[in-house]
Amino acid sequence: MPRGFRAGGAAAGIKPSGRPDLGVIATAGRPAAVAAVFTRNQFAAPPIRISRAHLNATEIGGGGRFGWADAVVVTAGCANAATGAEGESDQTEVCRALAALLDTTPERTLALSTGLIGVRLPVARVTAGLAGLVPELSEADAGLEAVAAAMMTTDTKVKLATTALELPGPDDRPARVTVAAIAKGVGMIHPRMATMLSVILTDASVTPAGLFALLSPIVQRTWNQLTVDGDTSTNDTVFLLASGATGAAVTAGSDEAALLGDAVEAVARSLARQQAADGEGATTLITCQVSGAADDYDARAVARAVVGSSLVKTAVRGRDPNWGRVACAAGNARLPEEQLLEAAGLHHTEAMPRAGRAPELDPDRLQIAIAGTLVYRGAPLPYDRVAVGRAMAAPEVLIRLHLGIGGGEGEAFGCDLTERYVTENAEYTT
Amino acid sequence: MPRGFRAGGAAAGIKPSGRPDLGVIATAGRPAAVAAVFTRNQFAAPPIRISRAHLNATEIGGGGRFGWADAVVVTAGCANAATGAEGESDQTEVCRALAALLDTTPERTLALSTGLIGVRLPVARVTAGLAGLVPELSEADAGLEAVAAAMMTTDTKVKLATTALELPGPDDRPARVTVAAIAKGVGMIHPRMATMLSVILTDASVTPAGLFALLSPIVQRTWNQLTVDGDTSTNDTVFLLASGATGAAVTAGSDEAALLGDAVEAVARSLARQQAADGEGATTLITCQVSGAADDYDARAVARAVVGSSLVKTAVRGRDPNWGRVACAAGNARLPEEQLLEAAGLHHTEAMPRAGRAPELDPDRLQIAIAGTLVYRGAPLPYDRVAVGRAMAAPEVLIRLHLGIGGGEGEAFGCDLTERYVTENAEYTT
Repeated sequence: MPRGFRAGGAAAGIKPSGRPDLGVIATAGRPAAVAAVFTRNQFAAPPIRISRAHLNATEIGGGGRFGWADAVVVTAGCANAATGAEGESDQTEVCRALAALLDTTPERTLALSTGLIGVRLPVARVTAGLAGLVPELSEADAGLEAVAAAMMTTDTKVKLATTALELPGPDDRPARVTVAAIAKGVGMIHPRMATMLSVILTDASVTPAGLFALLSPIVQRTWNQLTVDGDTSTNDTVFLLASGATGAAVTAGSDEAALLGDAVEAVARSLARQQAADGEGATTLITCQVSGAADDYDARAVARAVVGSSLVKTAVRGRDPNWGRVACAAGNARLPEEQLLEAAGLHHTEAMPRAGRAPELDPDRLQIAIAGTLVYRGAPLPYDRVAVGRAMAAPEVLIRLHLGIGGGEGEAFGCDLTERYVTENAEYTT
Repeated sequence: MPRGFRAGGAAAGIKPSGRPDLGVIATAGRPAAVAAVFTRNQFAAPPIRISRAHLNATEIGGGGRFGWADAVVVTAGCANAATGAEGESDQTEVCRALAALLDTTPERTLALSTGLIGVRLPVARVTAGLAGLVPELSEADAGLEAVAAAMMTTDTKVKLATTALELPGPDDRPARVTVAAIAKGVGMIHPRMATMLSVILTDASVTPAGLFALLSPIVQRTWNQLTVDGDTSTNDTVFLLASGATGAAVTAGSDEAALLGDAVEAVARSLARQQAADGEGATTLITCQVSGAADDYDARAVARAVVGSSLVKTAVRGRDPNWGRVACAAGNARLPEEQLLEAAGLHHTEAMPRAGRAPELDPDRLQIAIAGTLVYRGAPLPYDRVAVGRAMAAPEVLIRLHLGIGGGEGEAFGCDLTERYVTENAEYTT
């Protein structure tokens, strides 16, 4: 647990199961700098609209993408999405109650929520839960783990990742900086400029704008390369908070920023992989790595298309090295518009020439390997179907494509599509 | 069966099951004008590349999108895709054999294929099959039905649609013009500027360029609004052939062209709906109709997003009026780039300002009705969940959205996602 934060979770009675469904992360002493990436779904839920407004109120010029905060509240079991004006005022009331308990202003609170769409938040239960929870917040690891547990919905596992690094601290003495992150999956996962819920904490000292510059490209390479079922949710959010408690100051563009970026990317990638592996009904993590592309954007687009294909996902389910479906999926890849724009920091019209275009791909130069065996190199290759099928019975199946065009690289994460995914989502309202 | 065509099907031994897998449609007397729309998958199969080249060779300026032909050959059970240079020469040999049997040139033959990717066409069996089939081609309806049966893969039903209209014929006497069409579904269906395989025949007299101008916008409103599993195949093709046998001349932009367009659209829409209803593993046709959009492009984009959502598809599977998933899917809609460009007849850069953008959508003005019951109007409405669930047990579930913005309308067709889709595609290599 990075210094400068307290956290904890509780069961407030939002989930009918009685499981933990309320989490709070609060600063200890002074506000944290925050960077945020949100879903591009046009039905963005009240917690997102309010968090964006609060960030905007605490830092001029951030456009709601970065600012300052003293607390993050997570509610699970109810997404508070598509709930109209009432959903907005419900969420405002929750933030106000939390601010009062922490002796801060509502503008310094942020909110995350996940669960059923179209159902109102039981505000009285949430505020009662907060009143009990806030005095119990802990600076120990268990506090953050409790938040991770409270944000679970159809997740079968708690998702945590942590790492540490050494950076120059006050008076240039080395300071140990910690990065710790939590996330939840595992359905309605197809992030577009965001993730499902995730909170990343660090005790380095970074400005809000510097944090956003660090976070944005990392999200491109990790959560924006994750898909479970092709549906981007209404509530996707990732928050990166920096408490500054170690006094290790990191300025944008410095060597320290690169080191901190590597640490944040490591936890983000770990969480994205955990989310894919725990995808609803999944038995297998599918990782697609693409090399030899014209550039990294092309490589990522191809990787995303492969892990997103229903037919690739069912082939992996059947342990069938059906590379024809991989080739077909690669042939369908398209560069996403927003991803390019955001990553390049460009305005809408400037990046248009490539937005939505197909990546460069030549069937004659393409190579495909499944679970370590090369099966296609410009034409089908003979291979031992049974042996490759057996290798695909692992918890992770690696599909590699070499495009033979340039030096671009990228990867994407997904999971197999199983009968259980269908059953879970047909039989239960989620 | 429109006049001026002969057709028939046979079992050539491509499918291991021994079922019909070879079909031929030939002209009777003089070449037919042809318009074609092909998949945008970059792994376009040899039959597509060769058909495009043949069309290009028979009509200057068509860019392979229209021309003249005397025959179409359909092979099923083997897609002849991702087969390298050998796949190309295999397909060339089939076209050459067909041309010889029909006493025409190879450039006046077109090819369609469907089936397993990455497997070579058994050319000797196909040419032997052609030698037996060509003398038996029939001008009766049964001939076309036999082609429709021969092109089936995982389809459970033959897909046919036919209509007739009266147009001015020679000497301005009324001529009865027939439009008949066949198609196959039912997996790897997510057309992008194309369909799965379809052939439409008419005995009106239209130029190749006029036929293409007629066909292209119809494909936008029908097959490009169809999805089963989100994967665009390597072989998608629709051919529209006009024999001219009735002597009813139709010129672009005329009232007759509008009437013929309505007839072609009626059969295309019927086939698209048949394909969705017979989607792999499907139990229910899902039709999404959108009104009140800023324009028709916006409406179609929203409709496509709704029928394409895994979570909407599984909700329909569970007869669950989970409108939150519908709202979420609508919020994820994006205007496709190619669709706009093609429909507007614009060059790549000209249509860019809207390509890939989100349609205009305001959660406060949105209305959603499921199976006839209004469930959301800017906010959740109370409704009888059990009654709506019961209404969803029909063979077709209608989801209607009114955006409350403008006068744009559109629809899209899909099907529920079932355990059987997963089982079929996991257990069998398709």
